[in-house]
Amino acid sequence: MKIKFNREELQSAVNIVSKAVSVKSTMPILECILIKASSEEIRFTANNLELGIETVVKCDKCKVQEPGKTAIEARLFADIVSKITENPDGDIIFTSDGNIVEMTSMSASYKIQEKDPDQFPELPMLNEDNYIAISQFTLKEIIKDTIFSIAVNDSNKMMTGELFEVNGNILKAVTLDGHRISIRNTELKEDYGSFKAVIPGRTLTEISKILSGEADREVLIFFEKESVMFRFDNTVMVSRLIDGEYFRIDNMLSSDYDTKLVVNRKEFLSNVERSTILIRESDKKPLVLNIRDQNMNMKLNSVLGSLNSDMMVNKTGNDLMIGFNPKFILDVLRVVDDEEISIYMTNSKAPCFIRDDAQSYIYLILPINFNTAAY
Amino acid sequence: MKIKFNREELQSAVNIVSKAVSVKSTMPILECILIKASSEEIRFTANNLELGIETVVKCDKCKVQEPGKTAIEARLFADIVSKITENPDGDIIFTSDGNIVEMTSMSASYKIQEKDPDQFPELPMLNEDNYIAISQFTLKEIIKDTIFSIAVNDSNKMMTGELFEVNGNILKAVTLDGHRISIRNTELKEDYGSFKAVIPGRTLTEISKILSGEADREVLIFFEKESVMFRFDNTVMVSRLIDGEYFRIDNMLSSDYDTKLVVNRKEFLSNVERSTILIRESDKKPLVLNIRDQNMNMKLNSVLGSLNSDMMVNKTGNDLMIGFNPKFILDVLRVVDDEEISIYMTNSKAPCFIRDDAQSYIYLILPINFNTAAY
Repeated sequence: MKIKFNREELQSAVNIVSKAVSVKSTMPILECILIKASSEEIRFTANNLELGIETVVKCDKCKVQEPGKTAIEARLFADIVSKITENPDGDIIFTSDGNIVEMTSMSASYKIQEKDPDQFPELPMLNEDNYIAISQFTLKEIIKDTIFSIAVNDSNKMMTGELFEVNGNILKAVTLDGHRISIRNTELKEDYGSFKAVIPGRTLTEISKILSGEADREVLIFFEKESVMFRFDNTVMVSRLIDGEYFRIDNMLSSDYDTKLVVNRKEFLSNVERSTILIRESDKKPLVLNIRDQNMNMKLNSVLGSLNSDMMVNKTGNDLMIGFNPKFILDVLRVVDDEEISIYMTNSKAPCFIRDDAQSYIYLILPINFNTAAY
Repeated sequence: MKIKFNREELQSAVNIVSKAVSVKSTMPILECILIKASSEEIRFTANNLELGIETVVKCDKCKVQEPGKTAIEARLFADIVSKITENPDGDIIFTSDGNIVEMTSMSASYKIQEKDPDQFPELPMLNEDNYIAISQFTLKEIIKDTIFSIAVNDSNKMMTGELFEVNGNILKAVTLDGHRISIRNTELKEDYGSFKAVIPGRTLTEISKILSGEADREVLIFFEKESVMFRFDNTVMVSRLIDGEYFRIDNMLSSDYDTKLVVNRKEFLSNVERSTILIRESDKKPLVLNIRDQNMNMKLNSVLGSLNSDMMVNKTGNDLMIGFNPKFILDVLRVVDDEEISIYMTNSKAPCFIRDDAQSYIYLILPINFNTAAY
């Protein structure tokens, strides 16, 4: 095999597929990148069996002088590519003799050992019956706005995934971790039917890094029973799904409330951030909101000290005293873009909702018990 | 005690003294910052017994409404100051009743526990007989140019320090770690006499972070038998010295050579950097330079693969094949500013020198043995 690579295209392809490389595997071939060159294109593949990515470099700036295939240890390959592409001049000549890969650029050349490309597990091909089309920008936004309330450790595997549920022209994305729920409803351009999937959080984190995020470029998402496939630009990403029924969240949601606040998001954010410096590690101290008329007093007491601050709010309904884990409020305030947000509460034991009128986002946060006498 | 603080001045004073706070100590008072306010000034002090810093805030933008002193846990204080100074408006009111410190800014107020200021160990005062004056810029440069070849672990305590030796109007700074020596000779404006000290590496790292680095601002350095004191701007820094005689390095230096190279620094740097990606962790593979006429070939073989590259050099004297730890060459190439550097070598077993004609810098690097047949 012999290929003349354009620097940027080589760098970009390696960056993309690297997201699906196994870091430490009992199968060393999963720590590799597979490269297959035909006369028209060069195909890069990585596959850790949970997540696989394939990206194609077309032969316009690159030239395949001799077709073939090889597999190379990914981390080393990425290091070499990033060093060898530093110098802005000239192409990179990539040759493989079935044993040693040589990469040459100007006056420097690297030689590294190849792995057997035939051991590499190819990506499964999905049927394309159930799919949606969505802009790269919107998919990136949906992930950013919900991924934070996924459970990190997998004592409950289902909580480490995100529900993508399509109903006609609506895509609903849901994450929850037992203390809070994040929901994002997105209108699609067409009616696509009804289907759903629970996608591993890691898959969404990785695709977020690869998506260019442009509003006028699309992603197609194909849904099958056990897998989901994303197709965009020159790239295909296939991920296994989390198996089983997602939590029923509809009966946890309610639009009744006794207290409604409209607050300036940035001012609230800066007040909550101030309180978090008094909390260290696993400390679980509530931030207590005391809402009286149009004033919201915020207090946090910890072993380190106490914070007391006030801000003006636009309140309708009852006065209320309620405590929250300040981190959960921060997570929401950091992803919402609105200048003013609406907060709906019932009493100090009932969940609080942060949502917009169109319900394009709904955040449920459970309050924390506290000893009212101390505040 | 009651003080009205200007935000920037409070932030800056806390940042400066924080460098000398104990991270974890059996004496909790060493984890504190001492604040003493008189009608003219507010004095901030931190002291971990190895290193102490004191900085003074003058009462022009700040006002002491009630003099006094207190001690506060430094990390928490720094966190609060950085949060409370985020909002650009208004001053910070700081009060202490001998038990609780309250810091108030606009609509937020923090309360934290004080510590007993009388337990705080004051900084020692040094006599001012032996001293030099040097620009902040130059001191920062000297440290940057030498600190990298200090030994990190202290199996040999003396190697964790840096020799500062004054002889008339020359300051010589030396570090060494058993594989290499770095020397920086700096001409001073006056003749200051003869004295020397071995300053702990950590002290120099910390002062580097505090110095503004401007060429027209001076540092005075006072030398005593067991301590050194740096005085600059509104700040004083006192450090213990490393006790004992520093290594005799003069007989290790030589100006004889059989091969002299003049090379473009950036090109050599980029070639050496390329080789380091084939080395992982404790791997000690030499970069072998093979100098033939006006060409230098560089080869590195490791378990991961091999690199082969060439560059043009300006050579006088013998051809030579010699191996080095590439990291040691990198460290030097990264701090020298010259566009072209001169490298002096004798044979593959003898130390190599990188130095300028004026000997304002001298770097000695020991070569590594290698099996010539493999290169």
